[in-house]
Amino acid sequence: MDLKRPTLIAATLSTCGLLASTSQADVDKAIEYRQDALGVMAWQIGPLGDMAQGKIDYDAEEFRRRAENLAAVAHLPWEGFIEGSLQGDGHGVDTDALAEIADDREDFESRQQTLVEETAALAELAQEDDFAAMRRQVATVGETCKGCHDNYRAE
Amino acid sequence: MDLKRPTLIAATLSTCGLLASTSQADVDKAIEYRQDALGVMAWQIGPLGDMAQGKIDYDAEEFRRRAENLAAVAHLPWEGFIEGSLQGDGHGVDTDALAEIADDREDFESRQQTLVEETAALAELAQEDDFAAMRRQVATVGETCKGCHDNYRAE
Repeated sequence: MDLKRPTLIAATLSTCGLLASTSQADVDKAIEYRQDALGVMAWQIGPLGDMAQGKIDYDAEEFRRRAENLAAVAHLPWEGFIEGSLQGDGHGVDTDALAEIADDREDFESRQQTLVEETAALAELAQEDDFAAMRRQVATVGETCKGCHDNYRAE
Repeated sequence: MDLKRPTLIAATLSTCGLLASTSQADVDKAIEYRQDALGVMAWQIGPLGDMAQGKIDYDAEEFRRRAENLAAVAHLPWEGFIEGSLQGDGHGVDTDALAEIADDREDFESRQQTLVEETAALAELAQEDDFAAMRRQVATVGETCKGCHDNYRAE
């Protein structure tokens, strides 16, 4: 299936009754869900970044808790990027998710997997007491976020 | 501290420079965070409820995945219920969180703990194959949600 034209395909198949189970409301809910999940990620990573950059004091207990929370949710948002839910797809919710996601699903999914792995590595580092290593890993996680945003999120 | 009047207290202390670290923007962000986290919970529990009620077919893999996700996020929303973030507190974001939460923080926190425990029990049951037990536990989780909503969420 040509993922570059999900809306047209969905519309065509829907006319045939083949995609009756994915409604406009389903697409809107999926967008809202992924925005919620990304919001939860942003909330967790915020203090980690602030501690890594020295904007707030390092607190081992909070660092560990945030790192664990981040690792626990890093796999969640992605199921919300369903067909017909990108910019220009004609749904009912504003989204920054660019149509380019559909051009290279493989790259998009590979980046998700990298984020899951890098946040897991951060949660593991947070169990020990090498703050320099934790700071480096926060930077790595941040670069993973940024790499995806640069390619697939509207500015 | 009298938790029934957090806004007034915050305003007073803020004038004294004692609460400078919690701004209006911080309160708004905390409300948005908890709404995001509760949205993620709702997304995960939806298909579990539908399977338990026979609205959609039981799918062991999806049931297990949703139950694990739900258990992983059940502890997250609650840190967003900070002082000054309830209905009537004069912040900048709409919320259904009733002022009654401040009247009995102990009960509110006890209900959070119950939810964490009941969702963990559900995730554990989902590793086995007793669907009747899973259905009962979905109902228990649902009642836990409802108990809190009945007491502390605007209709």
